[in-house]
Amino acid sequence: MPLIVQKFGGTSVATPERISAVADRVCATARNGTKVVVVVSAMGHTTDELISLAQAITPDPPAREMDMLLTSGERIAMALTAIAIDARGVSAMSLTGSQAGILTAGAHGSAKIAEVRAERVREGLAQGKVVIVAGFQGVDPTSKEITTIGRGGSDTTAVALAAALDAEACEIYTDVDGIFSADPRLVATARKLNEISFDEMLELSASGAGVLVTRSVEVARRFEVSLHVRSSFTDQTGTWVKETTMEQAIIRGIAHDRSEAKLTVRGVPDQPGVAAALFEPLAEGEINIDMIVQNIGHDGSTDISFTVPRAMASYAADVAGKVAKELGAQMVEVDENIGKVSLVGAGMKSHPGVAARVFRSLADAGINIEMISTSTIRISCVVSGDQVDQAVQALHDEFQPPLMAEEVGA
Amino acid sequence: MPLIVQKFGGTSVATPERISAVADRVCATARNGTKVVVVVSAMGHTTDELISLAQAITPDPPAREMDMLLTSGERIAMALTAIAIDARGVSAMSLTGSQAGILTAGAHGSAKIAEVRAERVREGLAQGKVVIVAGFQGVDPTSKEITTIGRGGSDTTAVALAAALDAEACEIYTDVDGIFSADPRLVATARKLNEISFDEMLELSASGAGVLVTRSVEVARRFEVSLHVRSSFTDQTGTWVKETTMEQAIIRGIAHDRSEAKLTVRGVPDQPGVAAALFEPLAEGEINIDMIVQNIGHDGSTDISFTVPRAMASYAADVAGKVAKELGAQMVEVDENIGKVSLVGAGMKSHPGVAARVFRSLADAGINIEMISTSTIRISCVVSGDQVDQAVQALHDEFQPPLMAEEVGA
Repeated sequence: MPLIVQKFGGTSVATPERISAVADRVCATARNGTKVVVVVSAMGHTTDELISLAQAITPDPPAREMDMLLTSGERIAMALTAIAIDARGVSAMSLTGSQAGILTAGAHGSAKIAEVRAERVREGLAQGKVVIVAGFQGVDPTSKEITTIGRGGSDTTAVALAAALDAEACEIYTDVDGIFSADPRLVATARKLNEISFDEMLELSASGAGVLVTRSVEVARRFEVSLHVRSSFTDQTGTWVKETTMEQAIIRGIAHDRSEAKLTVRGVPDQPGVAAALFEPLAEGEINIDMIVQNIGHDGSTDISFTVPRAMASYAADVAGKVAKELGAQMVEVDENIGKVSLVGAGMKSHPGVAARVFRSLADAGINIEMISTSTIRISCVVSGDQVDQAVQALHDEFQPPLMAEEVGA
Repeated sequence: MPLIVQKFGGTSVATPERISAVADRVCATARNGTKVVVVVSAMGHTTDELISLAQAITPDPPAREMDMLLTSGERIAMALTAIAIDARGVSAMSLTGSQAGILTAGAHGSAKIAEVRAERVREGLAQGKVVIVAGFQGVDPTSKEITTIGRGGSDTTAVALAAALDAEACEIYTDVDGIFSADPRLVATARKLNEISFDEMLELSASGAGVLVTRSVEVARRFEVSLHVRSSFTDQTGTWVKETTMEQAIIRGIAHDRSEAKLTVRGVPDQPGVAAALFEPLAEGEINIDMIVQNIGHDGSTDISFTVPRAMASYAADVAGKVAKELGAQMVEVDENIGKVSLVGAGMKSHPGVAARVFRSLADAGINIEMISTSTIRISCVVSGDQVDQAVQALHDEFQPPLMAEEVGA
C-alpha cells in the first residue's frame, strides 16, 4: 500500500473551516487506498502571537522556554486536524514531534533533525490510521528537552518523515499554486513550473524564493524524496521537485531577495591574507555572509564588498570596521538599499552566453549591477533596492523561463 | 531548605501582566530561601477557546485528541511563567505533566493521578531552579498517551505534587481572598475563614462551594498536605485547610448549589428491592445521583425523590420512567427549579439542636424544605430555586459562621 506525506502550512490550517478542508483532502487520499502521514504547522499567526506574548513579558526570553511555548502551536493544529479527519469517519491519531520520534541535536530554537525513529507513526499506520504529526519540533534524546528546528521547520519535518518512512512522495501544500518562474506579484507573465531539479530548487530557495526552505530541499535531495509543492485551495497539480526532471530547462526561474545589506571595505591593502583577516572575525561573530566580491587591485590597494542579512548589518560594520583599522583600510560603507536578483537553470552550464545576456538586458533597462556572483547553475546580481522589480521583469522578459532546452534546439 | 507548591489558576495567569505579577510573587518566595514548585492552569479562557475551535469542527471530537488539544493551554501558561521568572533573575524550568512524572490511569478527559514520579522536578530543584509544572495533565504509562484529569484538575496536580515532594504546604492562589462562611455575593456579612478542616472543606466543596474541587481536597486529606487558599492579587493570609484546626468551629460555613434538578417517582410500591430496581439502571446510565429521599410509605406505596445534575435530568427521567412503569409506579416528576443549601461544621455532631434551628430559621423565612439530607457534619436542604439566596442569608443570620465552640462556651 503506497504511503505519502502531506504537509500543510499555517495558512492551510488557519481556521476550523480550513482545517475541515484539509481533512476532506486527506480523507480523499486515504479512501483511495493510500496511507497518509500529515504534518501540520501552527494555525495562521499562532506562532507570532505566542512570540508576542513572550515579548510582552521580556525582550529576551530563554530559548528553552520559547521552544516549550511555540511547540504548543503545532500541538493545537495537529489535534484539531485529527479531530476533523476522525469526524469524517477516517481513523486518525495525532503525535507530537517527540512522540513521532523526531530526534534532534543542537540548540533550542534552531535544532537539526538528527534521526527519525518513527515507531509510533508506523504503529498508527499499521492500525489503519492517518497519523498527524506536529511539524517544527522534536526532542533531544540526550537532554530529553523539547526543541524546535527553526521557522519553516515543518517542511523539513515532513521531508524527514517521508525519507524515514520511504514514502512515495512528500506533498507540500501551500497558499500558492507551486513554484513559479518568478514572483507572480512582480511579473504578470510568470509561469508555474511543472518540474524542477533539487539543485535548481536549492539555488532558487537560497536566492530568496520563499516557497520552500533550503533545508527541506537539502534533506529531500539527500534522501531522494520527491516533493510536490501545490495549493491547498485547488486540486491542480503543482510543481514537482525531484532528482531528474523530464523537462530539461536552460533557465528555470528567477528569484529575488531584499533581505540583505551590502558592506564595502575600501582601500584594503592588496596583499595575501587580507580577506582571511576580514572574514575570520565576521565568522566568529556568527555573521552569515552571502556574496563576496573583491575588485581588481590598483596602486596596491583594493575594495572588498560583501552582503549580510540586513538585521546584522550594523553589527557586521562594527566588526569589519575594527579589522579595517588594523589593516590600514580607509573605511567601511554600509548600503541597506540593495536587492539581489538570481537567474537559475541547470542548462546554463552547457549554454554559454547566458551571463552576457543577463548583463546586457539589465544594462538596456538602465540598471546598474553592483555585485556579481555565479555558480554553475546560477547568476546573481546585486542591484539598487529600488530597481529589483524592474530587474526581475527585465530578466523574465529576456529569458521567458522556464526556457526549455528543446525550445532553443538543444 | 523548605519547599512549597504554589498553584495559580487561569485568572491569575490570564495576561502577560498577570503572569509577571505571579513571577514577582514566586521570586519573592524563592529569594526567601524556599524551594518553589509552581503549578499553572491555562491562561484565562484558553481552555474554553480551544473547546470552541474543536466544536467548530465537530460536536463530538474524540477524547484522545481533545486531551492533545487542551493540554497545550497549560503548556503555553507554564512556558510564559518560566520566562517571566527567568526574566527576574531566578532560574526557572517548565515541565509538562508528562515530564513532571504525573502518571495517570483512566479515560481521556477524566483520568486520575495514579502516581507521581517527580524525578525531573527534583533534579530541577536540586539545580536551584524554580520548577513550573503544567496542571490538569499527565501521561498514562501503559499507553504512553497524554491525558487530562478533568476540569479543576490543576488543583489536584498541585496537591499531588506537594504530597510526592513532601512539601510544607500547597498554596492555591485564586481570584478570591479565601474560603468564606458563605458566598460573599449573596451574603454581605460573610466572613473569610482563617482555618477549616479537611472534612469540613470536603463537605463544603461537595455542597457547591466552588473555590476548591473536591478531588484536590480528598488528595490533600489522604496525604495530609496543608492547603493555603489565598488571593493572587493581595498578600493577605487566606484560608488554611488542614488536618486539625486550632479554632474548633460548631458551624464553619454555608454552601449552596443550583446545578441540580429533582426527580420524584410517585406511587412506588412500598416493598423491598424497589430502590435497587430504580437506582441500578440509573447507575448503569452513569447518572450521578446526589441526594435520595424516600418518604414514609402509606397505603402500601411511597414516593422516592432524588437529585441529579440538571444537564442529566431529562435523560434520568427517561431511565427512571421505564423503571417506574415496570414497578407499577404512577409517574416521574422533574423539577428543575431547585437549589440546595448546606450548613457545614465539624462541631455540629457534638451540639444537638443544630438541625432544629436550621428548619426553624428556614420556616421563619417562609421557605419550604423539599428534601433533607444529613451527614455527621452537614445538613443539606433542597428548597425552591427562587429561594436559595434567601435561605443562605437566613442560615447565615441564624448561625453567623464561623460559629466557634468557645463563642457558645463549649
